[in-house]
Amino acid sequence: MSTSVNSTPVNEKDEQVFQDLKLLNAVNDRYGGVIVEVREAMDSALFGSVLRASIAQWRHQGKKGVWIKLPIQHVNLVEAAVKEGFWFHHAESNYLMLCYWIPEGTHTLPANASHRIGISAFVMNEKREVLVVQESTGRFQGTSVWKFPTGVVNEGEDICAAAVREVKEETAVDTKFIEILAFRQSHKALFDKSDIFFLCLLEPLSSEVQKQETEIEAAKWMPFEEYKAQPFVQKHELLKYIVDICLAKKDGNYSGFSPVPTTSAFSDEKNFMYFNTTDLNGQ
Amino acid sequence: MSTSVNSTPVNEKDEQVFQDLKLLNAVNDRYGGVIVEVREAMDSALFGSVLRASIAQWRHQGKKGVWIKLPIQHVNLVEAAVKEGFWFHHAESNYLMLCYWIPEGTHTLPANASHRIGISAFVMNEKREVLVVQESTGRFQGTSVWKFPTGVVNEGEDICAAAVREVKEETAVDTKFIEILAFRQSHKALFDKSDIFFLCLLEPLSSEVQKQETEIEAAKWMPFEEYKAQPFVQKHELLKYIVDICLAKKDGNYSGFSPVPTTSAFSDEKNFMYFNTTDLNGQ
Repeated sequence: MSTSVNSTPVNEKDEQVFQDLKLLNAVNDRYGGVIVEVREAMDSALFGSVLRASIAQWRHQGKKGVWIKLPIQHVNLVEAAVKEGFWFHHAESNYLMLCYWIPEGTHTLPANASHRIGISAFVMNEKREVLVVQESTGRFQGTSVWKFPTGVVNEGEDICAAAVREVKEETAVDTKFIEILAFRQSHKALFDKSDIFFLCLLEPLSSEVQKQETEIEAAKWMPFEEYKAQPFVQKHELLKYIVDICLAKKDGNYSGFSPVPTTSAFSDEKNFMYFNTTDLNGQ
Repeated sequence: MSTSVNSTPVNEKDEQVFQDLKLLNAVNDRYGGVIVEVREAMDSALFGSVLRASIAQWRHQGKKGVWIKLPIQHVNLVEAAVKEGFWFHHAESNYLMLCYWIPEGTHTLPANASHRIGISAFVMNEKREVLVVQESTGRFQGTSVWKFPTGVVNEGEDICAAAVREVKEETAVDTKFIEILAFRQSHKALFDKSDIFFLCLLEPLSSEVQKQETEIEAAKWMPFEEYKAQPFVQKHELLKYIVDICLAKKDGNYSGFSPVPTTSAFSDEKNFMYFNTTDLNGQ
């Protein structure tokens, strides 16, 4: 996405500018569409005219999808694009992505990110105590439920790094990531998005607990049996599975998925692949 | 998110309306903030004034985050909100969510969905042939690489259902979902979002292959050894791991994560939890 509107500046002589600025510059994408990135201020009525003429040309060229990336400083152009038939695709804090489909029929434009990713951290010490917190905001506020530290995996953050970070932030305990024991997918979560949370096993590297000030009411090490005996844990199928899996890991022979760094097929960047290394290496 | 602007209609007498419409209606969220959902047409200058007055009141009340959900038909109000200091939080095709943070310091508003989720389907028949496709658009267009069927998990769709659907769409082969063998997380994918793809094991329930018309160049059953011998597969670390895991599953003793329906702690809706049921049940 590296194209700009033609660089003739907008000035008082709109008629003249209009003649210079007949079409928007665009780059082709890999799917028969075009991408416009607005880089300069424009009058909104002029933008509407230029956009209309550009669509006519792209239609003539057989183009399919049209994307307009509109930085927030050019917010004055949003209404004009919508008037030309564009709809919202997605937005980030500093830009809005609009899109349009030229051919007849249903569009095949890809959807934006659909899932939020979370972690829940199972951290047990040598005394069979588990690291737990009470939250001071959100659903659990005022419920007195002791729960594993949880948190959101940020865009661009590895799941294994997020688990270590969240435990540190909420309890000040240092940990080492071991493996993913299970995960759960759910739907219609925040902003109607889907959600996957990964149950992570971490090994404690320190023991002193200090709760985070703003979102954590209390944090401590609690005997696992006491955690398990909480009515909230006993009552919910999901939490009963989590208890069973954690105990199978500690006392039995349970293998989860461990992170292994790999390079992707299309770049040299290292990413983590997670799989059952116990079984794979045992072949 | 169920609040509207006060219901006095906007008419020619803007002065009068302004007096009636001093503040926007808002509902409180669980985190000390407020949510406004615009439900009726308004003049943009009037909206700006009312919004300014509302923010002053919310500040007085000690509110933190402010959310405005703006349906696309009220796109004329976007610019006014941005002028009052709002930024874009996220957008769906039919609305834009704007946000604002009243207190001093960095905001703690939650991020929108950060990940796209994909599947890659390993389907092998009794003759040790694997189901493969060549893609006619995107990165693999024209490369002659035979690859497992892949696809995107839609918002609201279970991973196990998405894998069965994608195999059916691309090849017309019916399958049964067995388990997740591995997954890979990567970053800076489409629209700069992060991405998790799940390698899924499916069992074929039918054998006749018919390729999808628009996105698939070719589809067939291919001896696994021939798939594995492709230079593209040999060259890439990620694909070599995938081959090893698939072979360990077929010939060895590899356990992945199987889907188990569970209810969540906060609703009666059934969701899938994925874990190593072989190890858990073997305790």
